[in-house]
Amino acid sequence: MTDYMQNLGKNARQASALLARATTEQKNNALLAIFEQLKTQKNQIMSANQQDLQNGREKGLDTALLDRLELTDSRFDTMLQGLKDVVALPDPIGEITDMTYRPSGIQLGKMRVPLGVVGMIYESRPNVTIEASSLALKSSNAIILRGGSEAFFSNQALAKCVQDGLEQAGLPKSAVQVIETTDRSAVGELITMSEFVDVIIPRGGKGLIERISNEAKIPVIKHLDGNCHTYIEQSANFDMAITVCVNAKTQRYAPCNTTETLLIDNAIANDFLPKIAHALVNQDNAMQLRVCEQSLSILQNEEKLQSHISKATEEDWDTEYLAPILAVKIVADMNEAIAHINRHGSHHTDAILTNDYAKSLQFLREVDSSSVMINASTRFADGFEYGLGAEIGISTDKIHARRPVGLHGLTSQKWVVFGHGEIRQ
Amino acid sequence: MTDYMQNLGKNARQASALLARATTEQKNNALLAIFEQLKTQKNQIMSANQQDLQNGREKGLDTALLDRLELTDSRFDTMLQGLKDVVALPDPIGEITDMTYRPSGIQLGKMRVPLGVVGMIYESRPNVTIEASSLALKSSNAIILRGGSEAFFSNQALAKCVQDGLEQAGLPKSAVQVIETTDRSAVGELITMSEFVDVIIPRGGKGLIERISNEAKIPVIKHLDGNCHTYIEQSANFDMAITVCVNAKTQRYAPCNTTETLLIDNAIANDFLPKIAHALVNQDNAMQLRVCEQSLSILQNEEKLQSHISKATEEDWDTEYLAPILAVKIVADMNEAIAHINRHGSHHTDAILTNDYAKSLQFLREVDSSSVMINASTRFADGFEYGLGAEIGISTDKIHARRPVGLHGLTSQKWVVFGHGEIRQ
Repeated sequence: MTDYMQNLGKNARQASALLARATTEQKNNALLAIFEQLKTQKNQIMSANQQDLQNGREKGLDTALLDRLELTDSRFDTMLQGLKDVVALPDPIGEITDMTYRPSGIQLGKMRVPLGVVGMIYESRPNVTIEASSLALKSSNAIILRGGSEAFFSNQALAKCVQDGLEQAGLPKSAVQVIETTDRSAVGELITMSEFVDVIIPRGGKGLIERISNEAKIPVIKHLDGNCHTYIEQSANFDMAITVCVNAKTQRYAPCNTTETLLIDNAIANDFLPKIAHALVNQDNAMQLRVCEQSLSILQNEEKLQSHISKATEEDWDTEYLAPILAVKIVADMNEAIAHINRHGSHHTDAILTNDYAKSLQFLREVDSSSVMINASTRFADGFEYGLGAEIGISTDKIHARRPVGLHGLTSQKWVVFGHGEIRQ
Repeated sequence: MTDYMQNLGKNARQASALLARATTEQKNNALLAIFEQLKTQKNQIMSANQQDLQNGREKGLDTALLDRLELTDSRFDTMLQGLKDVVALPDPIGEITDMTYRPSGIQLGKMRVPLGVVGMIYESRPNVTIEASSLALKSSNAIILRGGSEAFFSNQALAKCVQDGLEQAGLPKSAVQVIETTDRSAVGELITMSEFVDVIIPRGGKGLIERISNEAKIPVIKHLDGNCHTYIEQSANFDMAITVCVNAKTQRYAPCNTTETLLIDNAIANDFLPKIAHALVNQDNAMQLRVCEQSLSILQNEEKLQSHISKATEEDWDTEYLAPILAVKIVADMNEAIAHINRHGSHHTDAILTNDYAKSLQFLREVDSSSVMINASTRFADGFEYGLGAEIGISTDKIHARRPVGLHGLTSQKWVVFGHGEIRQ
């Protein structure tokens, strides 16, 4: 196992040096060649996927997992379109910014460069194999992929297309390598071979990510969870607040940028809470509300709501439901709201609804989250909405890239100096 | 120990929330109050330093270490001036950049924010206590300091001034805390309490830094070594190349941005090598040259040089001398030079001397180092020369900040969204 992994690492390191030199045209040609290979080899990919699905059913995998594993025609088309989207993105590599003359006479700037070799560990969605490969390639990084064992055959078939496309475009095949074993010790090797791997990107369950963060000897771009808040400050326009809050919670439940706790100023609670509660319950998929004691008493005479309300426990403030459940809490003022968010939130995405100028700026500054929003739905916090093109991973870390992480998250900057023979005095 | 460290951590976390709200004026007032406290308490600081020096002599510390430990009057003044310099730096916190409207109508930007709590582990220079405190404060971070045990009393006396100054300016004393024990397990606690510490900055020997990187459960901004190169490409102006190369090696030996290996194109070696060799040897502090076999044969008839030349071994290409010794190697062409640098260098700072336009751009792109220079001395790679004001630490990592790391290295960015009630479709 060690020899096998070390070999992958060496190959990736060599490929990354060649990728660093590749022109934008070469990289785009490789992406287009992969696009063609996927179309040509679609039958092989689909039957590999069928084999994974059959193995999964025999092993008794649950429906949700089998669903994620399945490559439908429409998912296949989305995957193809994703490649075209990455071709259309500007090449981040080589960009020089912040050029200034220093008093010594040197001209100083920053050049965007690849990270080198990315190790990616992910769940059983085969499309991630193509997404991650294309983003790594566009940003001139080599990548070593370790997909879920359930998607073993699908990932092999997809990786073959990628390598065929790379070869056709004259780029090294080992720029994208899939770990061809389901031996779990491969992950342990991958996350500790710091000589060959520059960054680890895990996607998957919280347990997996925590284990990887603890054991890695390489920087990890990690995302743990999304416990997002929408706070209704007393000056908020009620109609806007209801529309935005309903969208933030109900537009979709599963994404990590969905609001999980609604905070309401005490001054408007009597008036606003019944309105928003009815709006949330009158959805196709009616909400369950876990409310604080004061909310419970305000809502006690609203008969229609009773079957949808229960008293929140302390645990609710810390819970990412990913389900039609919303926690609701009345706060004395914005300071309490900010303190609640910074304590119970996951530093992911939090929004305020307000028309108060000073408070909007204070909220923006003091909430310690990757995305902080005024008068907008927390659901906007993603790579496509932010114009990053695509997301390679999602990060709640403060170091390096903060969520969402697009192509730039796979790059670093180096200082460049244009001199004319200057020496240090 | 655990209780003691957890307590420091909790205090730091609380202080960091207050610092995040502090205005630029409050932070500058605190820095000026620390300045005054240092002047007022100079006698106490100096006698604490004398005590450290005496203990050091009794323990038999070597002269170099005792020298680093000593707070002379001039070093004290430099430390005071450093505080004024940090006051003069622009406040990085709250800066919003890259504001754009997205098609959805939201206005998206990035706001610069503090990292939170910094844990700093450093060698026995007491002035680092003030430098690190002032940079942390200016960037709204709380900091926990663990200085070398040899500087124990000096650091306590300095930390008292810092805390007195903070208190006077109405900021929390626990924004800057010095670990008041020499128990080595304190470091182990500091680098693993991820709940309270956001980043670790170690300064010191390679062994210490490697150990910290391996054991930390928190991101580490680390710097290992500086094995820098100056490469003389065949089109270089000889006079410029000699001036720059002599400066890069001899202006000072100890800094990590000093050139340790000189690479020379084969096409000009016969002509250029004797010239540069004489220039390097005709210094006040004559160089020892460790040269490749071909260089040895070119220089064999230069009598004056013989006592300064010896044959290099493979190990020389990997060595950071920090001494009047320079490795010299003739390379076939720029590709060999780049390959040598990327293989043997430490990804710190490397320079090319050239007048070839295409090659200068290729070198800039393909050398994988924190700083890459054309026609300038590698000695320019530092925070003051780059206009960063001061350095908190030095990083050869690719993730987050790359060397030199100034105030911005102690910050992160969060996404900010200004909306008008937008919802996700």
